[in-house]
Amino acid sequence: MTEPFAAVDVIRAKRDGGVLTDAQIDWVVDAYTRGVVADEQMSALAMAILLRGMTGPEIARWTAAMIASGERLDLSSVPRPTVDKHSTGGVGDKITLPLTPLVAACGAAVPQLSGRGLGHTGGTLDKLEAIPGFRANLGNDEFIAQLTAVGAAICAAGEGLAPADRKLYALRDVTGTVEAIPLIASSIMSKKIAEGTSALVLDVKTGSGAFMKERADATELARTMVQLGHDHGVRTVALLTDMSTPLGLAVGNALEVTESVEVLAGGGPADVVELTLALAREMLAAAGIDGVDPADALRDGRAMDAWRALVTAQGGDPDAPLATAREVETVRADRDGFVAAVDAMAIGVAAWRLGAGRARKEDPVSAAAGVLLHRKPGDRVRAGDVLYELRADDAGRIPAARDTAAGAVEIAASPPVLPGLVLDRIAAGGP
Amino acid sequence: MTEPFAAVDVIRAKRDGGVLTDAQIDWVVDAYTRGVVADEQMSALAMAILLRGMTGPEIARWTAAMIASGERLDLSSVPRPTVDKHSTGGVGDKITLPLTPLVAACGAAVPQLSGRGLGHTGGTLDKLEAIPGFRANLGNDEFIAQLTAVGAAICAAGEGLAPADRKLYALRDVTGTVEAIPLIASSIMSKKIAEGTSALVLDVKTGSGAFMKERADATELARTMVQLGHDHGVRTVALLTDMSTPLGLAVGNALEVTESVEVLAGGGPADVVELTLALAREMLAAAGIDGVDPADALRDGRAMDAWRALVTAQGGDPDAPLATAREVETVRADRDGFVAAVDAMAIGVAAWRLGAGRARKEDPVSAAAGVLLHRKPGDRVRAGDVLYELRADDAGRIPAARDTAAGAVEIAASPPVLPGLVLDRIAAGGP
Repeated sequence: MTEPFAAVDVIRAKRDGGVLTDAQIDWVVDAYTRGVVADEQMSALAMAILLRGMTGPEIARWTAAMIASGERLDLSSVPRPTVDKHSTGGVGDKITLPLTPLVAACGAAVPQLSGRGLGHTGGTLDKLEAIPGFRANLGNDEFIAQLTAVGAAICAAGEGLAPADRKLYALRDVTGTVEAIPLIASSIMSKKIAEGTSALVLDVKTGSGAFMKERADATELARTMVQLGHDHGVRTVALLTDMSTPLGLAVGNALEVTESVEVLAGGGPADVVELTLALAREMLAAAGIDGVDPADALRDGRAMDAWRALVTAQGGDPDAPLATAREVETVRADRDGFVAAVDAMAIGVAAWRLGAGRARKEDPVSAAAGVLLHRKPGDRVRAGDVLYELRADDAGRIPAARDTAAGAVEIAASPPVLPGLVLDRIAAGGP
Repeated sequence: MTEPFAAVDVIRAKRDGGVLTDAQIDWVVDAYTRGVVADEQMSALAMAILLRGMTGPEIARWTAAMIASGERLDLSSVPRPTVDKHSTGGVGDKITLPLTPLVAACGAAVPQLSGRGLGHTGGTLDKLEAIPGFRANLGNDEFIAQLTAVGAAICAAGEGLAPADRKLYALRDVTGTVEAIPLIASSIMSKKIAEGTSALVLDVKTGSGAFMKERADATELARTMVQLGHDHGVRTVALLTDMSTPLGLAVGNALEVTESVEVLAGGGPADVVELTLALAREMLAAAGIDGVDPADALRDGRAMDAWRALVTAQGGDPDAPLATAREVETVRADRDGFVAAVDAMAIGVAAWRLGAGRARKEDPVSAAAGVLLHRKPGDRVRAGDVLYELRADDAGRIPAARDTAAGAVEIAASPPVLPGLVLDRIAAGGP
């Protein structure tokens, strides 16, 4: 086949600050998927996009081209309103685990396609796989059948969804081109739109433990994604939330499952409960479900029932004991005072070093490894109190994690002023 | 071997506008040569360098690392002062052909490592290979022996010289990262420094037919290269010369050999003679050879003798007839007046389309194809006079070239004010 463009001309156009045409975008995404545009050409283009930016219409077209690279699921046979949630990733962010069954228990269907962790933030699928027997890979028919029967499924995106994004994501990871808002937004939204959900709530995180450290960048990303959803007929709302402190007390795969089950049982850390309910309310509103308070479903056991049904449907045993770490080191306070801050990035990297995360896609993760916090910002401490535990399968992993986490918990003489967890809400409409 | 850096960290540092450390530069150039840094990583880095720039010390270190990737020739056994010339490339730029034997005839040794053409500018080796029998590949020992015996050699750079540059040059060509002054300067200078010459004269072209359309860019490139030569102990001077009009009348491989021989015989177009003599005087001065006027060597046949010796030494027959084109189309003036301009880019692209150049490295070139101008800027014309001929082996190549060249020759009612050919001279010293 004769190609209508040369890759080098498309790269040059963006490099020189130009706006790519619809035809150039359609071609370059398709030709990259076909292997006609080489990895070294796409990485140069990605760097040019990162440094030169893209206009709103360019991002919209790029996203549409990525969706068009594969199949788009049809969830119209599911007899409930569909609504999904995506988080840009944070430390201790296990919210998908209690949230998905909770929203299903309130009458929606949640088609949750999740990922595995890379770097200092954990992946939802890694957490669920800490449950013995849990299967993260479902075929499309199985996925739709479970959505119909249980109202929720949490699984890996199939190979057929946005293959251009799958290829580009792996490339960006090794070429220093991850941090481009147009590419982040189109990557997330192409998968969510292709999965077929009717509504979507985004949890866009900002702060030291987030991908977007700066609130202005997070806001821009949120606005871009909300607009993309709107353009493709997906009702989309974003919450901008704080990620300077880990969410909850547990950071690590099995530890986070345990904490999620506590939330589903009506307990759990206040911040996890708060964010779960805030996102659940947004999802129910986006799904058009009125008059249901998700707090009731946590209290009366319906959310827990939905969790057990979800885990069971995917082959997991909700009653099986989870892996525990062979090696535990406790770190204690050296003075009296108040916890002023817990640095999310330091705790996230420490958990990663303990074995909770992976350095490369093909690495295994440890179910049991991680950091268990005993104190959070605002808590009073006395010298000698346990601040956190480092947990690992292998004692050899402790020293590096110890060094990373050292100083992560800041103790001050007086109680800190704590920021709110939900910083902003961004919905479509307006220019 | 454990690598001291991760490529993605080096890419990110430059992407974010940072200055790479000496250790990062040494590593990334070496690791790319070894294949540890992948093509898609180097192309992302090249794009970041293009858009973020490099400091003088970064360019110097990058060049040194490219030289260190291979061997550096030792020309100390050659019993004459060595001096080379490099042109950044122009349309009809055959100056290397008369210049090299001319400077040799005046007492220097000229170790001229040249390239093949890509795009609209021809390559010196393609031109010489229009001479039956001419061999462009010489081994290092053969190269040094010929420099000693004849005082000049024009050949391809050996595989062992700056292999990092060889790999990077091919990558830049397909990734839209050619036009980065730090990468252009380090590419040219790493090869010239590795070839072992003691002195170097650069012909940096600017104007519509040049790589650097803007004079400011050409000046920056010239200054950067002069400084790099100086840093590595190579006496380096640059002339900034005009490339808005093709040099001479002949554009195409055999056509340019013929025109070069006319210059060596004491004739030839005035602009080719002027630039040949200007560069020869700079080369002799850089080589420390005083009291020799190269114009004498053109007049008295010594330059021609050196040319014949050079061609013969490399297997060519200086008396063999050159290929002629089967297809010739003449283009005539449609009015009376004066030639105001001849667009170098249009003529260069037309010659390329006729078969004089190649689109990809592996393509063959035609010896006979090209454009032969009959008029140059300032010349008087009458309606019906031949302006230029299009020459090709294959009639099918004529129409596209005809369209490309249409309008390249501008005719005005009054004679134009012509700019000088040599616009500036840039030597080391002073910040």
